[in-house]
Amino acid sequence: MIYRRKVHFYETDAQGIVHHSNYPRYFEEARGYYLEQIGYPYEKVREELGIEIVLVELTVNYKKPLSFGDSFEVDFRITDMDRFTFTFEYEVRSGNGTVATGKTRHTCLDRETRKIVSVPQVLRKGKEAV
Amino acid sequence: MIYRRKVHFYETDAQGIVHHSNYPRYFEEARGYYLEQIGYPYEKVREELGIEIVLVELTVNYKKPLSFGDSFEVDFRITDMDRFTFTFEYEVRSGNGTVATGKTRHTCLDRETRKIVSVPQVLRKGKEAV
Amino acid sequence: MIYRRKVHFYETDAQGIVHHSNYPRYFEEARGYYLEQIGYPYEKVREELGIEIVLVELTVNYKKPLSFGDSFEVDFRITDMDRFTFTFEYEVRSGNGTVATGKTRHTCLDRETRKIVSVPQVLRKGKEAV
Amino acid sequence: MIYRRKVHFYETDAQGIVHHSNYPRYFEEARGYYLEQIGYPYEKVREELGIEIVLVELTVNYKKPLSFGDSFEVDFRITDMDRFTFTFEYEVRSGNGTVATGKTRHTCLDRETRKIVSVPQVLRKGKEAV
Repeated sequence: MIYRRKVHFYETDAQGIVHHSNYPRYFEEARGYYLEQIGYPYEKVREELGIEIVLVELTVNYKKPLSFGDSFEVDFRITDMDRFTFTFEYEVRSGNGTVATGKTRHTCLDRETRKIVSVPQVLRKGKEAV
Repeated sequence: MIYRRKVHFYETDAQGIVHHSNYPRYFEEARGYYLEQIGYPYEKVREELGIEIVLVELTVNYKKPLSFGDSFEVDFRITDMDRFTFTFEYEVRSGNGTVATGKTRHTCLDRETRKIVSVPQVLRKGKEAV
Repeated sequence: MIYRRKVHFYETDAQGIVHHSNYPRYFEEARGYYLEQIGYPYEKVREELGIEIVLVELTVNYKKPLSFGDSFEVDFRITDMDRFTFTFEYEVRSGNGTVATGKTRHTCLDRETRKIVSVPQVLRKGKEAV
Repeated sequence: MIYRRKVHFYETDAQGIVHHSNYPRYFEEARGYYLEQIGYPYEKVREELGIEIVLVELTVNYKKPLSFGDSFEVDFRITDMDRFTFTFEYEVRSGNGTVATGKTRHTCLDRETRKIVSVPQVLRKGKEAV
């Protein structure tokens, strides 16, 4: 799946490039887009299913900088899913080639008890659909 | 009251200066510091008094830039308080003189009902103490 | 002119709503969109005209909260422009009505000398076009 | 080396905890503190040595959440340094135990040419000093 947008000025830093802490945010936006595409936007996951999706592991490899005004795309997919965790992998690309790659691993918590619960069926099916 | 700290690199932008959206955050940090000093840190306000402090108005006048590594101070105080609202005014200063001035106006909401409630006694007394 | 998008999860805070420091960022995104529409994206303003657009004054009035997943639009225009400054006004709206209003005043600096220069012709013409 | 501070409200998200994208920022603050302690604050590294320190790899493992108002410490050190890269490892701790662990790998670029240069002597010596 591909999520696209442009760099905002407030995402740059005094090196003149996108600050590295924005890439986890781009990944989050991509996941939000994914949930919308499978018909289960995150607000619905939270309200209807009563779960929070929690990040347990994050890796980013930075290859090339993004600058203000650059258009980029995040090419991403679920690469792994078992009963309690799932993993997304990401490749961020601009006209300049691969900008960064990344990986995030997640679990689901019951919003009330904060206990880990199994990955909901909609996400399992979503994985196959995309 | 004076709140002090240094600029973090991630607060700068591609103009090489602190991005303007950080000043409301500096003001929030200053207010948090104030609540700590009067013995009522915001987490206690939220938990014990069951209220949220909400921002209703923000003004910032930007005079000079702050750069990465600059030390600055926020000189601030409550300038106005009636039954339902209160106002903070701020002056941000670095070695370079006045960097910015600002003003924020707030009300208090009951955390459950989200209705406006009167400003709690601890904030009233805090105003006099400082 | 109208700029539209959805709230990202990382823009929310522990009150469950969009943190107030994001509104100046939304305004900046709207201005960036405006510059694109008049054929002068900000990166071109910086590179070709050699100027920085600098914020000198910011006002935001917060009326209602935005929550995660909300779609919103920023309805905005240039309301004032003289030789050295120009002003944008904004209304942020969601399905819920007016969320916030705001105003930003700007000047232009020569990127080399950091001296104030007159507002470039492209922005003057842009004002009329939109 | 230990870097300490408290969670700011604007760092929380609608899950009521610190948003994960702040941890890379905490790591950056810790590195900034380190450079100050060895007498080479980053602004001096940039100006005097003419280099940028660039992040090439980031890993974070999230164990427990941080909430608004929590005090935390980042216990960190350089664990690896060769001619062109160096690695920091971090453990974030609160009263609650280990909150997160992380790792960042860096290279140095000449600010003019943007080419990789060898790690400057001051950082090499800093590594031994701390």
